[in-house]
Amino acid sequence: MQIIDGKKIAGEIKAELKATTERWLREGKRPPHLAAVLVGSDGGSETYVAHKMKACEQTGFQSTLIRFDSRVSENELLERIARLNADEDVDGFIVQLPLPPHIDERKIIETIDPAKDVDGFHPVNAGRMMIGLPCLLPATPAGIMELLRRCRIETAGKRCAVLGRSNIVGKPIAMLMAQKTQSGNATVTICHSRTKDLADVTRQADIIIAAMGQPEMLTADMVKDGAVVIDVGTTRTPSADAKSGWKLKGDVKFDEVAPKCSYITPVPGGVGPMTIVSLLNNTLQAASLKRSSCNS
Amino acid sequence: MQIIDGKKIAGEIKAELKATTERWLREGKRPPHLAAVLVGSDGGSETYVAHKMKACEQTGFQSTLIRFDSRVSENELLERIARLNADEDVDGFIVQLPLPPHIDERKIIETIDPAKDVDGFHPVNAGRMMIGLPCLLPATPAGIMELLRRCRIETAGKRCAVLGRSNIVGKPIAMLMAQKTQSGNATVTICHSRTKDLADVTRQADIIIAAMGQPEMLTADMVKDGAVVIDVGTTRTPSADAKSGWKLKGDVKFDEVAPKCSYITPVPGGVGPMTIVSLLNNTLQAASLKRSSCNS
Repeated sequence: MQIIDGKKIAGEIKAELKATTERWLREGKRPPHLAAVLVGSDGGSETYVAHKMKACEQTGFQSTLIRFDSRVSENELLERIARLNADEDVDGFIVQLPLPPHIDERKIIETIDPAKDVDGFHPVNAGRMMIGLPCLLPATPAGIMELLRRCRIETAGKRCAVLGRSNIVGKPIAMLMAQKTQSGNATVTICHSRTKDLADVTRQADIIIAAMGQPEMLTADMVKDGAVVIDVGTTRTPSADAKSGWKLKGDVKFDEVAPKCSYITPVPGGVGPMTIVSLLNNTLQAASLKRSSCNS
Repeated sequence: MQIIDGKKIAGEIKAELKATTERWLREGKRPPHLAAVLVGSDGGSETYVAHKMKACEQTGFQSTLIRFDSRVSENELLERIARLNADEDVDGFIVQLPLPPHIDERKIIETIDPAKDVDGFHPVNAGRMMIGLPCLLPATPAGIMELLRRCRIETAGKRCAVLGRSNIVGKPIAMLMAQKTQSGNATVTICHSRTKDLADVTRQADIIIAAMGQPEMLTADMVKDGAVVIDVGTTRTPSADAKSGWKLKGDVKFDEVAPKCSYITPVPGGVGPMTIVSLLNNTLQAASLKRSSCNS
């Protein structure tokens, strides 16, 4: 059994990104530039955005944090997005979700220029991904694919169970795993809250990608020997041991499932670190495409 | 065992569409208007477009056929599409595929206004479908969903095997069947050329949607008793019996599979007639949305 060290792999990719940034600087180009729009001061959002900004710093990317009060009007936000779309110095940007209830998240997402949509949430990117065209991939599924590739885990012809059908993980990872590509070609089953006999499906799977958001729902009896288990769950659960009063729990009952696996990702330190790295990758990709299209 | 009569169901829907068109006329509105662009004179394409135009006639829809010589330049075609996008009298239009090799099909598809893309091939429509937002659905998957609804076939919690991962059938029908909707909620497995032990997957399925384009590949031993079998295959195979010299064959070995099924679609007369009806439905939807958004 091998524990996939997402933190270490993410570190290696960051080093590669840093090398690219340094090369760009030597060639007289400015580094890739990621902007983040943060509305209000939700604790979780503050933490996520801070991690993203820190990752930019570590890799030599330029970063800009744009803050709005939680009472900002939808129009003001839309205008700021239009300016970011037009800003040639910004390669990609994200609007940290969730947004306050008076703002239409869908409208915000669909206003972002798909070529700068480094979260990969715009329908054009979702559609291009599904069709198999070049696009900006959503960060978590892209991170999972990268983990599988770096660990040289064979996917072609394997049975893969995807647990969860969210727009940001379940549906896109199912599509990517089934796609006719070297890192896809798996026979994918999409499971969800309405799935009957979930254990029957997971027991047949060579690769299980758990993204239900239900702490420790995947137990040892649901996993066949030698399976690859990717745990996307990250639920904060109360814990007396932790200083913060909570612990991050995955969808997998790690201690009992791990001994049966050929590969497994831990929580934290598995998929999580890869998600931020995917965002940087997307920013680099957006920057490269823009420059190749305008010859600068 | 019940044979799903796609032709009859399509006829019923056409009658409903005709009633809607007549109501619109009584209310002083013009009927929905579908335009089709046909490049060259490929036999198959001629037939398909003729069927679509005929269906318009049957339902009181306005239709326009725009023909181009196969040597038309890409630019000329793009300009015509721009005019169709701008033409307020055209609610929806299709560009019949395949196009000659000197024309970039992707570029053509992505030039169509997504709001008029009644084939549902534009990435915006594919992405919106995947995300579960209102959109124009690709015709064949929409037709299959409609058949299942009209036959009151329960999908929630059922195991569904989708055979094939094409952009126009396999991938979208897998997404629609897995979607959190009343006519979805199935546990969907996407199978394809790289799937091992296909029969193991299909034998577990309550619903099999075969869209591989391999004549009679689904045999009786691959189907469990009481399964629902939807056959999307339409391959022309040589036949001495037929006047034309060929016969349309589905992906299902009908004679031996049918007795095991609770429901099955024949070829021809199953999914095929529904596809054209879906195109009309999309045109009506495009017309309704346009009018509601401009209050006309």
